[in-house]
Amino acid sequence: MSSEASGVRVIGLWPSPYVIRVLIALKLKGVEYEFVEEVVGRKSELLLKSNPVHKKIPVLLHHGKPISESLVIVQYVDEVWSSGGAPAILPADPYTRALHRFWAQYIDDKLPPAIRTLRATDAAAGDKDQAAGQMSAALQLLEEAFVKLSQGKQYFGGDSVGYLDIALVSHVGWVKAVEKMAGVSLLDRAKVPKLVAWADRLCAHPAVADAIPDADKFVEFSVKYGSFSKPINSGAK
Amino acid sequence: MSSEASGVRVIGLWPSPYVIRVLIALKLKGVEYEFVEEVVGRKSELLLKSNPVHKKIPVLLHHGKPISESLVIVQYVDEVWSSGGAPAILPADPYTRALHRFWAQYIDDKLPPAIRTLRATDAAAGDKDQAAGQMSAALQLLEEAFVKLSQGKQYFGGDSVGYLDIALVSHVGWVKAVEKMAGVSLLDRAKVPKLVAWADRLCAHPAVADAIPDADKFVEFSVKYGSFSKPINSGAK
Repeated sequence: MSSEASGVRVIGLWPSPYVIRVLIALKLKGVEYEFVEEVVGRKSELLLKSNPVHKKIPVLLHHGKPISESLVIVQYVDEVWSSGGAPAILPADPYTRALHRFWAQYIDDKLPPAIRTLRATDAAAGDKDQAAGQMSAALQLLEEAFVKLSQGKQYFGGDSVGYLDIALVSHVGWVKAVEKMAGVSLLDRAKVPKLVAWADRLCAHPAVADAIPDADKFVEFSVKYGSFSKPINSGAK
Repeated sequence: MSSEASGVRVIGLWPSPYVIRVLIALKLKGVEYEFVEEVVGRKSELLLKSNPVHKKIPVLLHHGKPISESLVIVQYVDEVWSSGGAPAILPADPYTRALHRFWAQYIDDKLPPAIRTLRATDAAAGDKDQAAGQMSAALQLLEEAFVKLSQGKQYFGGDSVGYLDIALVSHVGWVKAVEKMAGVSLLDRAKVPKLVAWADRLCAHPAVADAIPDADKFVEFSVKYGSFSKPINSGAK
């Protein structure tokens, strides 16, 4: 199905983890889309009109109707493209769904502030150490959650890529980039071996590989556009 | 169905808007539950064991299995008790669901910080003015959202109480309390007439009336336990 046929456009910027989520969900479902790239530091008329409340990316336009907030969009994609053999993103069991939603929220509470501090050229060394510590503690809990939820299988979603896989892997590009930028070890095979193996596996998945560029590209982006304690335009949710 | 038969327990404190949500969802579904009341400023062993990540209320225990985060719990309740004539909480249409989820997240981003500032005995008058302004702006947007989503019917959910109704009404007790405490007008019939009528209607609904005490009780609670810029134990999500 072409993007014209699917009627799907995504307004975004490639380095935004929240945009990456939307792209992964669409790729998993096999839905073609048109990517409408924003310019860093500017907000297009289309963006302002489509998300007047937050004025942030990503926005998914479906036959012209706008949807904002990345996790809301991922659930929308899952619900709209649910038949015809498309893989389910949310688990079928309500309790497992609740755990995926819980951890996805946890990730968005904990990871972005730590990444922002570790990227920031204006953050003190002490603040960076603290952010690295908080990130490591969060990854440790996510390692434990992975053991419980994957039940020995490949993904948080078991045999298939699930909601929580998407929520977490979308941050992996920046996690690897700040490891280089701040000289810290976060996805550390000695501490979170299962999560490291999961990230390697998932980043090679056809629905994910194209959506997440190499860590060096994120570093380049940070150097080019600056990185301060405040989020860039793409610091949306 | 008795609470023993339903296997449902809720760990909470009555003034928490996040706890109120869970109670409303259960009442709407006609699910009996046991309310396990926490003591202010202390965290029970049961709470610490049930929500070791955030150590916050509410927690719903279903046959002993814990679920945390109020909006995650409301969705869980909707998904588990979906048959036997129980009313649906999430709208059936994916786009409308996305709008309910979007606005629920908006509410939790905007209202609690403003309420906290307006309750706080240690906040400056200027900060309170700013918080009241932010709250009024948010309520104005929610008035407009109500017009779109209710389509001339009673609730955000149309003819029945929906996800967004629950997300917003849970804060109404505190909104009315801070109107008294800070001497400001927020749910103002001149500015947000439809929202005021909606709040009156919904607060009289049998599933809501018992869950939200009178504003004076919230004021008493604030006076008794103090109210600072930081949240109380019930400042969970």
